[in-house]
Amino acid sequence: MKIILVGFGAIGKGVAKVLHEKRDYLKKNYGDFKVVAITDSSGSAIDENGLDLIKAIEVKETTGSIKNYPEKGSKMKSIDVIREVKADVVVEITPSNLETGEPAKTHILESFRNKKHVVTANKGPLALCYKELVEEAKKHGVMFRHEASVGGAMPIINLAKETLAGNEILSIRGILNGTTNYILTKMEKEGLDFETALKEAKELGIAETDPTQDIEGLDTAAKIVILANSIMGLEKTIKDVKVKGITKITPEALFLANKRGYTIKLIGQIKENHLIVEPMLVPIDSPLNVKGTLNVAMFETDLAREVVVVGRGAGPIETASAILSDLIHIYTTINTKQKIK
Amino acid sequence: MKIILVGFGAIGKGVAKVLHEKRDYLKKNYGDFKVVAITDSSGSAIDENGLDLIKAIEVKETTGSIKNYPEKGSKMKSIDVIREVKADVVVEITPSNLETGEPAKTHILESFRNKKHVVTANKGPLALCYKELVEEAKKHGVMFRHEASVGGAMPIINLAKETLAGNEILSIRGILNGTTNYILTKMEKEGLDFETALKEAKELGIAETDPTQDIEGLDTAAKIVILANSIMGLEKTIKDVKVKGITKITPEALFLANKRGYTIKLIGQIKENHLIVEPMLVPIDSPLNVKGTLNVAMFETDLAREVVVVGRGAGPIETASAILSDLIHIYTTINTKQKIK
Repeated sequence: MKIILVGFGAIGKGVAKVLHEKRDYLKKNYGDFKVVAITDSSGSAIDENGLDLIKAIEVKETTGSIKNYPEKGSKMKSIDVIREVKADVVVEITPSNLETGEPAKTHILESFRNKKHVVTANKGPLALCYKELVEEAKKHGVMFRHEASVGGAMPIINLAKETLAGNEILSIRGILNGTTNYILTKMEKEGLDFETALKEAKELGIAETDPTQDIEGLDTAAKIVILANSIMGLEKTIKDVKVKGITKITPEALFLANKRGYTIKLIGQIKENHLIVEPMLVPIDSPLNVKGTLNVAMFETDLAREVVVVGRGAGPIETASAILSDLIHIYTTINTKQKIK
Repeated sequence: MKIILVGFGAIGKGVAKVLHEKRDYLKKNYGDFKVVAITDSSGSAIDENGLDLIKAIEVKETTGSIKNYPEKGSKMKSIDVIREVKADVVVEITPSNLETGEPAKTHILESFRNKKHVVTANKGPLALCYKELVEEAKKHGVMFRHEASVGGAMPIINLAKETLAGNEILSIRGILNGTTNYILTKMEKEGLDFETALKEAKELGIAETDPTQDIEGLDTAAKIVILANSIMGLEKTIKDVKVKGITKITPEALFLANKRGYTIKLIGQIKENHLIVEPMLVPIDSPLNVKGTLNVAMFETDLAREVVVVGRGAGPIETASAILSDLIHIYTTINTKQKIK
C-alpha cells in the first residue's frame, strides 16, 4: 500500500518512525506499507519505491525542511503531490486550524477527488464541515478515517462504530483534553492555584506556549463535535457547543468537592442533542475520575449499557498508533476486495 | 443474512430479542438479519423465510422446548440443523463446558465444514482447543468470531485485534468475572465476610447456585486463556494457568489493604508468557479499581501504551450486544466481497 504523508511535524515524524519500526511486522501480518511521498509547508520528497523514513526524519530535524531530502526532495507543494503522486492513501497531519480548517480541508477534498483514501488526525475540517467531507468521500468511493482526531491513542470513534456496532449510542461524556486534566489533577493533589499549575504544565511541555484552546475548552468542544457527528449521526459545528473553560477553578473548589466525595473535571458531554463543555463534579469512585494527562470516555448505549475507555490522549507515537490502526483497516478492506477480483 | 441460533437459554433468547427489536435498524444500516433456525437440546424450529422471534421466545418460555414452535417445530437435532439448513452464520450459545468443550466444539467444527461462519459466546471450546478451531475455520474459508466469550458487552477481543491493530499487546490484566467483583466490593464496603456476601449474591441472582467456577477463579482462568491465544498469539490451555480463588479473602484483609491505599481484586493476568489468576492488591486510584459486577481490562501496548476498558461482563442483552457486533462484522465483510462480484 502506497502512502503520502502530508504534514511532517511531531505527529508526521511519529507516523514515519512507527511505519519504519513496524515494517517487518506489517509485512508479515498484512503487507508492504510504503511511504512514497512526504510533504511539509516548504516542499516535499518523493520516491515511488518508498522513502527512507529514518533519513527523512533526520533531514527534517537538521535542516527544518523535507525538501532537502537528498536527490528526491523538491519544492513541489502538498496539493500537487496529492494530485500527481500515485498512492492509495493520504495521511493528513498538518496543524489543526479550528477557524478555517485549512489547509487540511483542501488537502482532504483533493485526495478524495484523486481517488485516494484519507486518514487524518486533523480536528479542524472535521469540526467545521464533517458532512461535506463524508459525502465527498462517498461520492468518490474512498474511505475516510480519523480515529486519531479525538483522544489520541484512546480507542473511541472506531470503538463506538465498529466494536460496539449495533448499539445505539445514547450519550457520551468524557475528559478529552490531557492538558486540562493534568492541571486539575495537580491543583487537586498539591493545592496549587490555576496559574501555578499551568506554568508547571508549560515547563513540562504538557501545555503549549499558547494554551488558550485547551484551558478555554475549545479543543474539547471540537472533539465532541467530531464525536457527535461521526458516532451519533448529528450535524453539529463548533458553534453549537456551550463552552466553559477551567480558568476560574480554584484549589478551594477542588478541596470542597473532595470533602463531599467528588472531584472537578473538564467534561465534554453529548446528550439529547445538546453539546456541552464545562467543569463538572464527578464522583471520586467514578470511572471518569482518571488522573494526570489521561483521557477517558463513557458511552451510554442501549444494549451494552455503559462502556468506559481510558487511554493516552496525546503524544506523537500514541497518535501514530491510531493512524496506523486506520491504515491497517484500509489495507484489510482493499485486500478483501482484491482477493475476489 | 441467514442465521441459525444453536442454544436457546437466557443468552439465546437475548440474541433473539435483540435481533427482533433491531430488525428495522439493521435493515436500514446493514441488511436483513433473518433467523432461519433455532435449536435447543430438545429439538428445533426451522423456517427459511425467518422465524417469528417473539413467538419463539414465548414457546420456549411456556413449554420449555423450541420444538413446540407451531408447524415449524420438530425433533431435529442441532447437529443436523447445522448440516442441513441453508444459512450464512451459526451462533453457538449452548452452555459452556470447561472440561470437554462439548457440545459446542462439535457444533462449531461442523459449522465450519458446512461453510458456515461462526459467532460464539462459548468459553469451553475456546479455552480447550483454540488453535484447532482457528485452523479449521481458515481451512474452510469462514470467519470465526467470539467477542462475547470474554467480558460480555465489554469490548476486548475485537478492540485489541482491530481497534488497536498494529499495536503489540505486551500484557493484559483485568477483572473478568462480575460475581467475584460483586462479592469483594460488598465485603469491602459493608465489612461482610465471604460467606455472607456470597449468599447475598446468590439471592440477587448474581452468583449461580453452584458458584465454584467463579469463586475458585476457573471462569477467569478460561477467559485469560482465550485472551492469551486470540489476542497475543500464544498457545495456552486452561492447564497452563496458575489459579487461586477468593474464598480465603477476609473483610480484615480488605480493611488493611484500604488503610494503605489499596483494594483487593481477583485479577487475571497475562505477562511474559505466564498466565495467573489470583487476588491481587490494586491501588485505590487505579483504573482497575471498578466496583460491583463491572469488568475491566488493562492492555499494555507498545504504541498506544496503556489502554483500559470497563463494561458489563454478563447479562443476556449485554452478551447479545457483543454477538450482534460480530454478526455485523461478518455481514459487512461478506458484503464488501459481494459488491465486487
